[in-house]
Amino acid sequence: MKQIVLASTSTLFGEEYLAYLKPAMKTLFTGVKEVIFIPYARPGGISHDDYTLRAADGFKELGITVRGLHTFDNPVAALENAEGIFTGGGNTFLLVKTLHEKGLMQQVRSVVEKGTPYMGCSAGTNIGGLTMQTTNDMPIVYPSSFETTGLVPFNINPHYLDPIEGSQHMGETRETRIKEFHTQNITPVVGLREGSWLHVEGNTITLRGKLTARIFEAGKAPYEVESGSTLEHLG
Amino acid sequence: MKQIVLASTSTLFGEEYLAYLKPAMKTLFTGVKEVIFIPYARPGGISHDDYTLRAADGFKELGITVRGLHTFDNPVAALENAEGIFTGGGNTFLLVKTLHEKGLMQQVRSVVEKGTPYMGCSAGTNIGGLTMQTTNDMPIVYPSSFETTGLVPFNINPHYLDPIEGSQHMGETRETRIKEFHTQNITPVVGLREGSWLHVEGNTITLRGKLTARIFEAGKAPYEVESGSTLEHLG
Repeated sequence: MKQIVLASTSTLFGEEYLAYLKPAMKTLFTGVKEVIFIPYARPGGISHDDYTLRAADGFKELGITVRGLHTFDNPVAALENAEGIFTGGGNTFLLVKTLHEKGLMQQVRSVVEKGTPYMGCSAGTNIGGLTMQTTNDMPIVYPSSFETTGLVPFNINPHYLDPIEGSQHMGETRETRIKEFHTQNITPVVGLREGSWLHVEGNTITLRGKLTARIFEAGKAPYEVESGSTLEHLG
Repeated sequence: MKQIVLASTSTLFGEEYLAYLKPAMKTLFTGVKEVIFIPYARPGGISHDDYTLRAADGFKELGITVRGLHTFDNPVAALENAEGIFTGGGNTFLLVKTLHEKGLMQQVRSVVEKGTPYMGCSAGTNIGGLTMQTTNDMPIVYPSSFETTGLVPFNINPHYLDPIEGSQHMGETRETRIKEFHTQNITPVVGLREGSWLHVEGNTITLRGKLTARIFEAGKAPYEVESGSTLEHLG
């Protein structure tokens, strides 16, 4: 059975890395001794090794060790044999480019569809959707494709941000950007605020966390859904 | 001689479309009777026709008519024969994809290098740089390449935004994003705040407007330059 946590962010303001996700991680990774970490998004240009150390720190309390996917000679086999997978945030273009180059995007999809527990944060959540086309990141590299795993049948906008009241900045709001996406695409988009995550169990996708999420469907006015709502019908 | 205005934004908060740029436009388009408008960035999904009408409104006061590039059977020839060119803002991915598909990116470069006056705002400014890889826009479509005109020998980040003091949002600041760009690229980046523009005359590139601009060079701490500074050495 598919078991997935797709979180808007790894870290809440003023909290430790992954702190608010610990209860969800305990459930998702029950019985798991080692998680394979996908470090390719490299936030701030951090090295794969250093990023893996940071991830390991976040799993220590659960008694789970973390090994970076970049350390394996055969990453396809590493994913096949993984007890659990975690993809950290950073730059989504870099993450997607690297996964496609190494032929790993479909492998992630395949093993997670077969039941390997998966957690993503931010960029790692973006790749859970059908495409990365609702990322907030800068196109610092050119990926061979914008397609991602489609583990959920819609797109996600992590770090979803409401318009800032009184702002005099003329750049587009997040909502305007997602509406522009819908002038070119019909894929629904879940705007996931920091502190929210999607919990996938088999065919059920549930919004978790304290906040509502903002749903964008092509041709409809955006609307809010409460925590606890199921979202699999969006696909 | 190259004559270019690359503006951060078309519109300042509380002002009319293009209002603050009118003096610069008068100089740039001296003697010009008709400007060819490139509407492909389609802000908010507006039609090419409607966007061209908006642009025409911005040029009315100067006694200059505006014709949309999309109305020509032969847009390559239309650019060749243009007295002046204006590219409006919107989604940079859509603009760049369309220009590459139609084989127009190199044509814009070619005629502007030969002296056709060019003005860009926002996305239309992004394509003045070497690549579109420092855009703020969402990748709503997949362009065949991120390369742009290279009319200036660096990249531009329009709508440059300083970190918001006291923000508890954990998404990356603009500065963090540009620094991530420099983990993968060495192209210098000019962070152009709203109200600023670059004025290119031949080989001289001058920062105009009331504000400073923030310069990002790979391996250096970012720094501010005053209005009136020349920037051609960055290339």
